[in-house]
Amino acid sequence: MAASVVESLILENETKIVLLVLDGLGDLPHPDRGGRTPLEAARTPQLDALAPRSALGRLLPVAPGITPGSGPGHLGLFGYDPVETPVGRGVLEALGAGVELRKGDVAARANFCAVDGSGVVTDRRAGRISSEECARLVAILRKELPRIEDVDVLLEAGKGHRFVAVLRGPGLTGEVSDADPHREGKPIPPARPLAPGPQAEKTARVVNAFVAGAARALRGELLANAALARGLSARPQLPGYRERYRLRAAAIAAYPMYRGVAELAGMEVHAVGDSPGEAFAAARRLWEGHDFFFVHVKGTDMAGEDGNFDAKVATIESVDAALPELLEGRPDVLCVTGDHSTPVAVRGHSWHPVPVMVHAANAGADQEARFHEKAARSGSLGTLASKDLMAVLLANAGRLDKFGA
Amino acid sequence: MAASVVESLILENETKIVLLVLDGLGDLPHPDRGGRTPLEAARTPQLDALAPRSALGRLLPVAPGITPGSGPGHLGLFGYDPVETPVGRGVLEALGAGVELRKGDVAARANFCAVDGSGVVTDRRAGRISSEECARLVAILRKELPRIEDVDVLLEAGKGHRFVAVLRGPGLTGEVSDADPHREGKPIPPARPLAPGPQAEKTARVVNAFVAGAARALRGELLANAALARGLSARPQLPGYRERYRLRAAAIAAYPMYRGVAELAGMEVHAVGDSPGEAFAAARRLWEGHDFFFVHVKGTDMAGEDGNFDAKVATIESVDAALPELLEGRPDVLCVTGDHSTPVAVRGHSWHPVPVMVHAANAGADQEARFHEKAARSGSLGTLASKDLMAVLLANAGRLDKFGA
Repeated sequence: MAASVVESLILENETKIVLLVLDGLGDLPHPDRGGRTPLEAARTPQLDALAPRSALGRLLPVAPGITPGSGPGHLGLFGYDPVETPVGRGVLEALGAGVELRKGDVAARANFCAVDGSGVVTDRRAGRISSEECARLVAILRKELPRIEDVDVLLEAGKGHRFVAVLRGPGLTGEVSDADPHREGKPIPPARPLAPGPQAEKTARVVNAFVAGAARALRGELLANAALARGLSARPQLPGYRERYRLRAAAIAAYPMYRGVAELAGMEVHAVGDSPGEAFAAARRLWEGHDFFFVHVKGTDMAGEDGNFDAKVATIESVDAALPELLEGRPDVLCVTGDHSTPVAVRGHSWHPVPVMVHAANAGADQEARFHEKAARSGSLGTLASKDLMAVLLANAGRLDKFGA
Repeated sequence: MAASVVESLILENETKIVLLVLDGLGDLPHPDRGGRTPLEAARTPQLDALAPRSALGRLLPVAPGITPGSGPGHLGLFGYDPVETPVGRGVLEALGAGVELRKGDVAARANFCAVDGSGVVTDRRAGRISSEECARLVAILRKELPRIEDVDVLLEAGKGHRFVAVLRGPGLTGEVSDADPHREGKPIPPARPLAPGPQAEKTARVVNAFVAGAARALRGELLANAALARGLSARPQLPGYRERYRLRAAAIAAYPMYRGVAELAGMEVHAVGDSPGEAFAAARRLWEGHDFFFVHVKGTDMAGEDGNFDAKVATIESVDAALPELLEGRPDVLCVTGDHSTPVAVRGHSWHPVPVMVHAANAGADQEARFHEKAARSGSLGTLASKDLMAVLLANAGRLDKFGA
């Protein structure tokens, strides 16, 4: 479905839409739990009360067989084609690290490494230094390389040897190659312009000055005496919720990555603590001034990544228990889903479709007793691309006009 | 889904993937058999043991309502868009006749016909001569027209009045029109170039010399005194399994058409006898040197074409009985499906979705008691385009990286 058709049909009204994303919600029947999924095993009286009067279905985040990262997973839910929407690796890393990106910023994934006397990379991970060590080295670089030409260099330490570098200044672009040999035994190649014109040349020059400056500043270090930069990418300028859907959207999330992607989509972002109750209370506080609420719950994904069935069940149950606070606002449309599956058995993101439930006056009443993967397979929503979900939510909110006469 | 996204995510590992294609597998509930399909009626203890721990679903070979030929049906399963992938009629006919096509070869569907004294076609099927008669006439043409200019003419007799002509020489193309009036009462039109340049001109000249030479050589024949050529097409150069998926793929099939299409996809082809046991034994012999095994079973399609419910059941049961030999290799991913439906009631290929079963550690356990068309309707795989199946198989084999961060 061409997004432009949806955008041409937008109506405005007073409705409230809630998109409640339980990260990595989808799962597989677990052999040790009687073939149940966490969503099946969880006690969810609130969701159970809604399920029979809701429409169920499944979302395909990107395409069959494709396992999405968090960026593409959320871009799809927000109504963007995750394949066509260019959000670079560096940008996602910066958003995940909580670096606020401004228009024109260029971000890179960076890491410390070890080079020998002739500049050949001997260890791309710098002996897997600790996060504390990484923070110490980032502090050195911050002091030594605060600015290159007229470009501010913003650094944020990450886990182990990883950090994020953001370049902020006029005339930059993400179209430069990596300053990273991508394997050991080779010198660090200079970043090269990947597009004609002064922007790519300037960006490459600044990146190369950063890499050279880092090597100088770290010369005395034992394990990590150089830095690499890759995945350079500019903050994308996406048409946002206000322009596309005429929605005043609020994003409520504990983790920076999800606030960051929501901010790219033009949402007003709000940080909260980890508990669903806190997130729902924040939504209720923001209720009057907004039409759309993206509420993100991280625990389901973390439990899936850890292979922890009980923790995933517990997160689902904590969401369910907190739901009355959210329902008090009487949202016109409540959608519960995930950005991708993170099955306990897989211990990571996966390609499996994600169950989705849409509760609204005219959504349809599938009369399924509960909301879970199996019930969703035969739900009235069928299996949709995530990027088409927004149109379904807008339609249920009475915010989409008829197409054609 | 852009195939290039899948190809950009390929990982390599030691897994084995088996794609077991029961040609024309899909069927319809049969009114004389209690509304059961052949797959439902068959006794399939081996498949029944796998089904509950597998993911079921359905494949759309081309698009809703479209009945695929064998070429498009298999191209889809092999991960090519069957609409976008140019495999000409002549090429498919040549592959079906067992003619090995080399790079640069141009193939045509040809047939004997009758013309009157003024060259007007009076019977496009030459009185439906027998296959034996066809072989006799092909032998005459082989002797009289072994070579035109610097082009070798390779002929293979087919059924009845049909045969295949392959042109092998430098500078040929499939872009020429048919030397076939497509109806009676008209003379044979000359093949004409459909593209500018010397290749189309040369090919048209050679085709016209062949048609003229055939008419001369067959002048004394009663029923079949001329030949027509149509569907001229060059062997396509498709990116193969090795380039696209980094898979060493083996194709095991009794019939040349399926080996031919697999060869276009870059598979190593192996001819076997008709029985599933023989095919599975061949797969096991090839086990070590390959990662992907396409095993083709023809009997289901033949039974469907014949309208023979019991024969279709018997083929399915013979596959099931032989399955343990294949399972002994412990494939990491086993997919059982068809290239299209060939319902007994239709007596031919049809447009109906085809049931598919994927068995793998993390495929999902749909907990369906058996694998058949009805169970497949609510399976966790949903309804996929055949061309998206390869991504699902690669994902299940751990051979696809995450998309985006």
